[in-house]
Amino acid sequence: MPTQMFDRATIVGVGLIGGSLGMALRARGVAREVVGVTRAEASIVSARAARAIDRGTVDPAAGVAGADLVVLAVPPDQVVPMARRVAPHLQPGALLTDVASVKAEIVESIEALLRPESGPAFVGGHPMAGNERQGVAAASPDLFEGTAYLMTPTPRTPRGSVERLAGLARALGAIPLEVEPAEHDRMVALVSHLPYLVAAALMGTAGAAGPAAGPSLLGATRVAGSPVAMWAQICRLNREPILDALRAFRKELERLETAIADGDRLDALLEAARRARLRLGGAPSKGPDKG
Amino acid sequence: MPTQMFDRATIVGVGLIGGSLGMALRARGVAREVVGVTRAEASIVSARAARAIDRGTVDPAAGVAGADLVVLAVPPDQVVPMARRVAPHLQPGALLTDVASVKAEIVESIEALLRPESGPAFVGGHPMAGNERQGVAAASPDLFEGTAYLMTPTPRTPRGSVERLAGLARALGAIPLEVEPAEHDRMVALVSHLPYLVAAALMGTAGAAGPAAGPSLLGATRVAGSPVAMWAQICRLNREPILDALRAFRKELERLETAIADGDRLDALLEAARRARLRLGGAPSKGPDKG
Repeated sequence: MPTQMFDRATIVGVGLIGGSLGMALRARGVAREVVGVTRAEASIVSARAARAIDRGTVDPAAGVAGADLVVLAVPPDQVVPMARRVAPHLQPGALLTDVASVKAEIVESIEALLRPESGPAFVGGHPMAGNERQGVAAASPDLFEGTAYLMTPTPRTPRGSVERLAGLARALGAIPLEVEPAEHDRMVALVSHLPYLVAAALMGTAGAAGPAAGPSLLGATRVAGSPVAMWAQICRLNREPILDALRAFRKELERLETAIADGDRLDALLEAARRARLRLGGAPSKGPDKG
Repeated sequence: MPTQMFDRATIVGVGLIGGSLGMALRARGVAREVVGVTRAEASIVSARAARAIDRGTVDPAAGVAGADLVVLAVPPDQVVPMARRVAPHLQPGALLTDVASVKAEIVESIEALLRPESGPAFVGGHPMAGNERQGVAAASPDLFEGTAYLMTPTPRTPRGSVERLAGLARALGAIPLEVEPAEHDRMVALVSHLPYLVAAALMGTAGAAGPAAGPSLLGATRVAGSPVAMWAQICRLNREPILDALRAFRKELERLETAIADGDRLDALLEAARRARLRLGGAPSKGPDKG
């Protein structure tokens, strides 16, 4: 159990990620008190029942008052509006962070809003954890265990604040990694947004042959079952890197197609992919796969 | 436990699928005796140690003698040569089947070889089970539980033999499904070969961003880590249906790309994919996903 790092942590948006964060902060003793800001009173009750928060409010201004850690865990397109709303109420030493999958626009807008040299400091964050479900009911205090926690400071971000966020990530069991905001967006376009869009395209192509679905199709398309609203926002907020990733992927696919048609170089291409996959590690199949 | 359906079952090729089949036949009492045909003497020892076979031989002719069920569980491009080798030694009432992922060429060649109206009968089979590992060490008696077992009879196949293979599939805990051989090949090109090639292409595109790999990438690319030899064979044996599937997939991908670039219809496309995925069911995430 780590030393208590924060006195009061406020989580704005207590869904899958915010709820899991609250659970982890409480279960691991990282914060003395966890305050949740929700949109409806009823959500306070369910968030408390799930042990994600100690107390809740529907008023963001009241929620962030007195907090030394404020996590904006709202949908990507609500991060900047919410930052604007809570900024005047943050206490000077507070650390403000978010969990959105897209960073460049968000970081630029919030830095323009706060003044990181004095007062509360913002450090963009993106825990690479989640599943295809949503809401506090799907939350888990172990969601971040062993995952990468991407942090996107800029030259203006105080190093002390980056260190505090890294400490938070470690306290959650995650591995903090620093990456420049635009580079972050290019990277997640490849490792997260592209696989989601590919899964959606696979469903469009192969979905009708469902009864015979094998383990590859089921594994590859699971993420296509996640709620659309967040992904559609991500596609809008990260349009250019995503279009670049799609173009790179189509080129790769065309190389394979040519190799299959010609019978040339196919084994070498597949072997290179296999080795890259083995280097990637992670998610080994647990026992026999079905389908 | 089902009634013993076969007196002597011979499995030619005791790897992941053949080994799992042998384990299931023995554990479930489906066959009185399971004989394994392997390439090396040493493999007999490991197959016996894994409880996949009762006894083994490296001589296919001797192995199939006296068997009322013969399963060719060798790599796809060895199925026809092996059928040619064992055909003269099959007993008249024997049921011959295979487990290859590609069917049209195999079924046509073996039917030309056997004469299904008299003597031993061949029914093409394809259990939709497996994982990215290989060999008897990865085998499991439960591998077929709840999976589709595709059978590809032709108008020349005796109905009694189809029923016997369906009975075998049910005894393994699988769900027998009949499909015409060429249709089988088109279907698996979509639900199995395409996801594999897409996984390989994703590795080629996103592999370098490995440290930040999210659950979608890990899930979507797991199959790309499987041994290349079998997949390269499948690409050669099922070339045309695979090229058709790749073309259909690229079209679907281009629709998404256009929708992202224009900002139009994206939500509707993603929502259609989501609903198709939820209809597909299967492989729900077990607890929180990582990455």
